[in-house]
Amino acid sequence: MTAETDMDEFKFHHFGVAVRDMQRGIATFANLFGYELRSGPFDDPIQNVSICFLSREGADPLLELVAPLGPNSPVDGILKKGSGIYHLCYEVPDIRAAIQRQQDAGSFLLSGPVPAVAFGMREIAWLMTEADLLVELLQA
Amino acid sequence: MTAETDMDEFKFHHFGVAVRDMQRGIATFANLFGYELRSGPFDDPIQNVSICFLSREGADPLLELVAPLGPNSPVDGILKKGSGIYHLCYEVPDIRAAIQRQQDAGSFLLSGPVPAVAFGMREIAWLMTEADLLVELLQA
Repeated sequence: MTAETDMDEFKFHHFGVAVRDMQRGIATFANLFGYELRSGPFDDPIQNVSICFLSREGADPLLELVAPLGPNSPVDGILKKGSGIYHLCYEVPDIRAAIQRQQDAGSFLLSGPVPAVAFGMREIAWLMTEADLLVELLQA
Repeated sequence: MTAETDMDEFKFHHFGVAVRDMQRGIATFANLFGYELRSGPFDDPIQNVSICFLSREGADPLLELVAPLGPNSPVDGILKKGSGIYHLCYEVPDIRAAIQRQQDAGSFLLSGPVPAVAFGMREIAWLMTEADLLVELLQA
């Protein structure tokens, strides 16, 4: 572990919820809990998903809605399993060092790092960690 | 909607992650992201689960680990699907009014309200909302 990959530098960024239809998803979360659209939707052809961010008053964590952008989207499998919330995202100061640290701890790199439209082309990577937790890393 | 069930009063409390083994789960999240045990584990025979809460420095949201307490635990189905993170919990000032509001918005009450060991016997309820999101409500 180097100073750049100290665990304190994994900063919680958002959790992700899969929805079939973006506009309906936005309306649902407004109606159920009062979430408001903060940014997006953004179409990300690299990830083959559409993404937006919702927030609420106060210190509530940021919620990301993710919908399929086209056929064979990676979010299709999540929607088939019927689980709404499916990933956590942590922001890191050095994404390559953070990936290495996760791999050293037994996590499996699924994809990336690649630039992401929703984050102004900052890089993201996807890992499957122990406890079947899907984690996104985001370059700070 | 009454003043007591205004959406602003759904206060984010924690997200829940299913694990097969509690002690291994605690070690995994310490190792991967530096989470520390904040309270528990608590055995809840009403829910047939063991629960603990993990936290990190700063404003990171509270993480709840949930493991089966005995056979036929409600968390078994989550673990079979292989999804780590599986619910969000919101604290509400009047759990019965909040349940009614969620039902009016199309959510389905799965169980409760019942007292919960992990929350000093405060009442909890489980709802399935639109977008396949499993939500726990917690009496403030």
